[in-house]
Parts: sequence; C-alpha cells; structure tokens
Amino acid sequence: MNTVVGNGFICFEDLSEGMSASFSRTVTESDIVLFAGVSGDMNPVHLDAEYAQKTAFKGRIAHGMLSAAFISTVLGTKLPGPGTIYLAQSLQFRAPVRIGDTVTATCTVLALDAEKKRATLRTVCTVGGKPVVEGEALVLVPSRSAGEACASEGKAAAAA
Amino acid sequence: MNTVVGNGFICFEDLSEGMSASFSRTVTESDIVLFAGVSGDMNPVHLDAEYAQKTAFKGRIAHGMLSAAFISTVLGTKLPGPGTIYLAQSLQFRAPVRIGDTVTATCTVLALDAEKKRATLRTVCTVGGKPVVEGEALVLVPSRSAGEACASEGKAAAAA
Repeated sequence: MNTVVGNGFICFEDLSEGMSASFSRTVTESDIVLFAGVSGDMNPVHLDAEYAQKTAFKGRIAHGMLSAAFISTVLGTKLPGPGTIYLAQSLQFRAPVRIGDTVTATCTVLALDAEKKRATLRTVCTVGGKPVVEGEALVLVPSRSAGEACASEGKAAAAA
Repeated sequence: MNTVVGNGFICFEDLSEGMSASFSRTVTESDIVLFAGVSGDMNPVHLDAEYAQKTAFKGRIAHGMLSAAFISTVLGTKLPGPGTIYLAQSLQFRAPVRIGDTVTATCTVLALDAEKKRATLRTVCTVGGKPVVEGEALVLVPSRSAGEACASEGKAAAAA
C-alpha cells in the first residue's frame, strides 16, 4: 500500500517505496512579480503582457523554477521533511504555467539506498492533472540509527 | 575564442560552442524570506536560526532553488535570452549558500543541435569561485531561418 504522508521529520528508516506527499499552490500575478524580483529573471515572457502575447505561449507564463521550488517545498517540509539534504534534481519542463493555474507538486519515493541513506523520488508538478514539470530528486535523509534528528517511531506511525 | 555575451535576444544561428554569460547576486536575508513566501518552502533550515545552528550546516542556508533560479535568469535574459524555451535542467547541489554569499551563475554553450534548434549549456553557480550548483540546461532557441524574433546579425555582432 502506498502511504500518503505530510508531517515531515521522517527518518530514513521510516521511508518506503511508494510513499508520497504533495503541495499545491495557485500561481498569482504577485508570485510571478516576486519571483522575478528575487531571482533577477526579468524575461519579458513573465512580465510584459504585450511581448508575451506575441510569443508561442500567447500570454505571460510563470518562471519554470517557481514550479521547481514547489518540489523543494515538498522535500524540505513534508517528505522526508526538515533535515533532508538536497543532492540533485532533474527537471523536464513539459508545459507552461499561467497566472491562476493551481500547481500540485508531488514527490513519490522510487528507491532507497540503505547504505548511503539516500532516497530517489519521482517529482511531478501538474496543473489540472497534466504534467508541467517532471523529474527526479536525490536526497540524503536523516537516520535514526545514526542518531540524527528525525521523528520518533511513534510520530512516524502517526504521520503515516 | 570563447565569447562572453550578455545582451540577450540571440538567434540560434549566432550561438557557438564556448559562448558564455553570467549573472551575479548577493543573497540577502530578504531574498530568503521572499523565496520562502513565494515557494511555500518554510523548511526551518532557511528560516529558524536556532534550529539551523544544530544542523550539519551550522546556520541558516538559502534555498537551493534560489541559485537554480539564477541559472534561469542567465538563460532567459542573457544567453540565449528572451524567446528561449526552457526544456530541461539538471542540478547537483554541491555546497550550501549562506546569507551574504555572492552567487555567480554562468552558462556556457556545450553543444548545438542545428536540426532541432536546441542548445545544451553547462550551468554552474559558484560562491568565491567554488561550485555550489552544477548541471546542464537544454533549451530551444529562436531561429532567424524560421523567421522567429531574435537579434539581427548586426545586433548579435555588437553583443559579441
């Protein structure tokens, strides 16, 4: 059975293949403006409605890395949660995200390396069920056996 | 000779292997707070100094996706610039970025696919010359031969 979790602070020992967690957010115009400011990415396809109208996208689109950031939100706050060290991420940008779209980032455990305490997760962002970003994440997960800070077995059971 | 460019709006026909462009930004506490807000990534390692002090990082660190966003800034505003369509990105997170660190994202053309009008770029973010994020980007570049909007040959020459 695949378990959906969401309370974070999960030990490596409590992960299993198929576990998943999600984060959803409606992308607003303010999000795009803030992301442009914080990243410096002033590409007019994000900010200039008249320019964007003339592109293949026929209108303003969100920064792809904004959706990628939602993946990091799942990994760093839900599954496995705080204490996780982000090692690598692959991203394939499949479709644009527009103002008003609700993006759901879902991370699902694909494989576990018990020796290195590493987890590989499938990472997908969808809008209306259609993938907009796909890829995989590789993370280093806190381990109870190594005495690292993560949930007690009781807490993990409650989260599951 | 490797050409350093930075004016954006570069046509596929004007790209060559070895061309590169960079974007630098000092990561401030405000950037981290804004990135947490816009992404929803409230991992305490970014926001909670007392928690972060107890982790392996011994203090607050920036979101890895913030550095990744600087790569997107180079691709979308400098090389190749507006009109570029982001297809894929790989990211290996090598070291943490701390408040006050100046991150330089550099993209260098590795390979060009003339048939598909695609470019592969090496993408590296450094702090003090040391890599913090490494990877590759795959982008679809506007083409003069296809009549798409990109720089005239004169403009491209001026940018080179």
